[in-house]
Amino acid sequence: MPTIDLNCDMGESFGAYKMGMDGDVMAFITSANIACGWHAGDPLVMGNTVKQAVSHGVAVGAHPGYPDLLGFGRRKMDCTADELFHYMVYQLGAIKAFCRLHGTRLQHVKPHGALYLTAVENKPVARAVAEAIVSVDADLIYVALAGAKGEMMRKIGQEVGLKVAYEAFPDRAYTPDGTLQSRRISGAVITDPEEVADRALRMAKENRIITIDGSVIDVEAQTLCVHGDTPTAVRLVARIREALEKDGITLAPMGGGD
Amino acid sequence: MPTIDLNCDMGESFGAYKMGMDGDVMAFITSANIACGWHAGDPLVMGNTVKQAVSHGVAVGAHPGYPDLLGFGRRKMDCTADELFHYMVYQLGAIKAFCRLHGTRLQHVKPHGALYLTAVENKPVARAVAEAIVSVDADLIYVALAGAKGEMMRKIGQEVGLKVAYEAFPDRAYTPDGTLQSRRISGAVITDPEEVADRALRMAKENRIITIDGSVIDVEAQTLCVHGDTPTAVRLVARIREALEKDGITLAPMGGGD
Amino acid sequence: MPTIDLNCDMGESFGAYKMGMDGDVMAFITSANIACGWHAGDPLVMGNTVKQAVSHGVAVGAHPGYPDLLGFGRRKMDCTADELFHYMVYQLGAIKAFCRLHGTRLQHVKPHGALYLTAVENKPVARAVAEAIVSVDADLIYVALAGAKGEMMRKIGQEVGLKVAYEAFPDRAYTPDGTLQSRRISGAVITDPEEVADRALRMAKENRIITIDGSVIDVEAQTLCVHGDTPTAVRLVARIREALEKDGITLAPMGGGD
Amino acid sequence: MPTIDLNCDMGESFGAYKMGMDGDVMAFITSANIACGWHAGDPLVMGNTVKQAVSHGVAVGAHPGYPDLLGFGRRKMDCTADELFHYMVYQLGAIKAFCRLHGTRLQHVKPHGALYLTAVENKPVARAVAEAIVSVDADLIYVALAGAKGEMMRKIGQEVGLKVAYEAFPDRAYTPDGTLQSRRISGAVITDPEEVADRALRMAKENRIITIDGSVIDVEAQTLCVHGDTPTAVRLVARIREALEKDGITLAPMGGGD
Repeated sequence: MPTIDLNCDMGESFGAYKMGMDGDVMAFITSANIACGWHAGDPLVMGNTVKQAVSHGVAVGAHPGYPDLLGFGRRKMDCTADELFHYMVYQLGAIKAFCRLHGTRLQHVKPHGALYLTAVENKPVARAVAEAIVSVDADLIYVALAGAKGEMMRKIGQEVGLKVAYEAFPDRAYTPDGTLQSRRISGAVITDPEEVADRALRMAKENRIITIDGSVIDVEAQTLCVHGDTPTAVRLVARIREALEKDGITLAPMGGGD
Repeated sequence: MPTIDLNCDMGESFGAYKMGMDGDVMAFITSANIACGWHAGDPLVMGNTVKQAVSHGVAVGAHPGYPDLLGFGRRKMDCTADELFHYMVYQLGAIKAFCRLHGTRLQHVKPHGALYLTAVENKPVARAVAEAIVSVDADLIYVALAGAKGEMMRKIGQEVGLKVAYEAFPDRAYTPDGTLQSRRISGAVITDPEEVADRALRMAKENRIITIDGSVIDVEAQTLCVHGDTPTAVRLVARIREALEKDGITLAPMGGGD
Repeated sequence: MPTIDLNCDMGESFGAYKMGMDGDVMAFITSANIACGWHAGDPLVMGNTVKQAVSHGVAVGAHPGYPDLLGFGRRKMDCTADELFHYMVYQLGAIKAFCRLHGTRLQHVKPHGALYLTAVENKPVARAVAEAIVSVDADLIYVALAGAKGEMMRKIGQEVGLKVAYEAFPDRAYTPDGTLQSRRISGAVITDPEEVADRALRMAKENRIITIDGSVIDVEAQTLCVHGDTPTAVRLVARIREALEKDGITLAPMGGGD
Repeated sequence: MPTIDLNCDMGESFGAYKMGMDGDVMAFITSANIACGWHAGDPLVMGNTVKQAVSHGVAVGAHPGYPDLLGFGRRKMDCTADELFHYMVYQLGAIKAFCRLHGTRLQHVKPHGALYLTAVENKPVARAVAEAIVSVDADLIYVALAGAKGEMMRKIGQEVGLKVAYEAFPDRAYTPDGTLQSRRISGAVITDPEEVADRALRMAKENRIITIDGSVIDVEAQTLCVHGDTPTAVRLVARIREALEKDGITLAPMGGGD
């Protein structure tokens, strides 16, 4: 019976600044990518978000990013691989301490924003990111881009000895070569709940995606990324979960849960 | 045979900014308090300093501080106990990851600057700090102020189940009631190397301190704090070590070493 | 004919983090206190908020704070007067550049949060804050607490040669001695729109406040502080303005407008 | 009679972190590029450095950078032109307030590190930087790279109406096409004091540079960049100044002084 994980970025509030609807979305997802205080998040937010995840049976992952709170980690920074390695170790260590505090294990690591995109494209960065994860805990799962474009990132993760979870995006348009359509192009983000739920179902059940020209490509994915930053986004997550369950797909954390 | 630990603040450089003479002082101390990136330090500095400590056989401790790089953690901030608890967990988690990376264990925790002083005076803060340490690793040693003024801080550490190392300051003047003379008063810091070495020896061998009025008080201490921020400071550490060894005192990390 | 100013904290968003309903509240106020990038705000937010104020005919003020984004400037920090003087000059210079960019003048300065409270209580800080304002522009208006408790802060402002605007809080309970009821005591913040509007009217028209024991005290005020961080808060500002205008009070920036 | 300006980066200390030998180098230069608190510097450092410059008759310039204290502004960040425009306005406004405090005018603006390099290569960034300067003060001098590679940057400065000072580097090797040799190539930085002094003299007197293949190219420059971060660097500046003065070159701030 097919199984899929739903992951969502969480814990992106900072001090007095609230972001996301973590409390609402926790009910529908299976894995939470929790910000580690660099591009977003702070120690109180991290602690509370891990606690919330545990109480919902949601598996905890790290969501490390660039040292750029002002840009929310969305701007590439010309850091060396050695710098990024150490930035990753630091952030992973911090989130692990909150996992211990709340009696859970860190399940996975998914780099955030520009750091994810850089790891997709830049081999030394991909290696630094993967090696940092291994150095902190060799049992961690590395969430890496599914499809053709993510091959290098995934391979390096596997080379260093990590389990890699392939990630697809039900609300994003794909080109026939299996890459994500640029957000700058209209239609790159799909907003119709039924269409997104259909795409999620096809990804989970058939490992297939319908691309922008109507062709169907094979894309293996063990986890689907969903969003929880607006009431509409939360409803969409609920709809995706409902569609998957109705079709007999098992929803479970990528690491299999406890 | 009497044994003593020499601890020193380390890893306080930040990015392009260099501080301290870590490489020189490592040869003489037994425990390093390494900054955790909040009041000072950064991930690269933390990694390199832990590595350096390991290569010298120096035990690694955490030196967490307030979120105040601009003030170097020396300014009290009116944080809640809950905030400080989480700030501590975060920093301890981060430094632990670098210990793992370089094949060592975190031995101890010594709060930095204004956070240390607040923990000395403020019971809820002392408790938050101690409980954060336990939550991260119940085997960690908590470095707390020796003498009368440090009693509350030490007691709370023991109440939560931590081993507590009592810390004395050979280069600081003590009042007859066993508290440190305020730095605002002339003579609060002793600079003559021979006098400081003598005081260190008396602390290590007899658990005694000569106070500013010449009286002798009993102050139990398992670790002595030394400084390594200038060439003069490094020479002073060397002199202290030499005096202790000459007198048959064993120098060893407060946790006993591996 | 009585005239009053309505001031509101603005421009407290930061990067991807949105805070406040600046666009909605601008229609009802006469002076905006714009955050300067330390406790809140960033250069893009500052530029956009000044522009928005100008387009609404709202006068622009600076809202400088402590270097504590994580605590939103609400935590006292043990900074020296000299540090605070320089922190103020820095922030005022920055906001002035955005005023120039959008063709307006900086009208006033109102310290934020813990810095405001420290200036109320601590004479050297009050002096440092006032002197920083004079050094940047001697024509700036200094917004200081009305009533008995604000006397020192206001006097020092006047001593250094600043025009001082006395500020009262229509939605806050006052004790019979004219100080603000502590927020820790229930009832410290008044939420009924009609009661708040009544209090604003009495402040503007009669310079009087009904205290928590029912007594009436004289409190001179040229500006009333309102809030715009929630839809309810915005409706309250609208109600205050309506009540004042209906009673023939003129609403105008504290500096008289251009 | 030929005139030249010597500019040097200054005010790069931050809190407890000291950088540079500002007090020593001030005696030899004519223009100081003072960090504005983003990549380096803080309000106290800015105030003290402006004061020091004024007392030495050294003209004050702004040295704005990326929001990257951890990377000292040396890492390119993928900011939008609009973001950089606002970051520049903010930093220039802040330094101007310190100029006013110490009774001087801001003379010039020289972007720092990666921001300078980005302005050399990227047209929208070059325009954003230049327009930010104009918006703050149209009389400011824009320091831009001399030689072929700096042409776009200089042109845009002139297009927006700024006076542009062409900057050359006596201690850097130039390729025959007039660009700076990459620092990654050995020999890119010239360390022999006599050779650097000779190059400075040739730049100031003849507007000529000997390139790495021995050819001589024409490079117009009104200001020469020198360094003051080590005792050796300070001695080099002193030697350059001595050589220039001995040959009858007038040393004066690029703006002509007061």
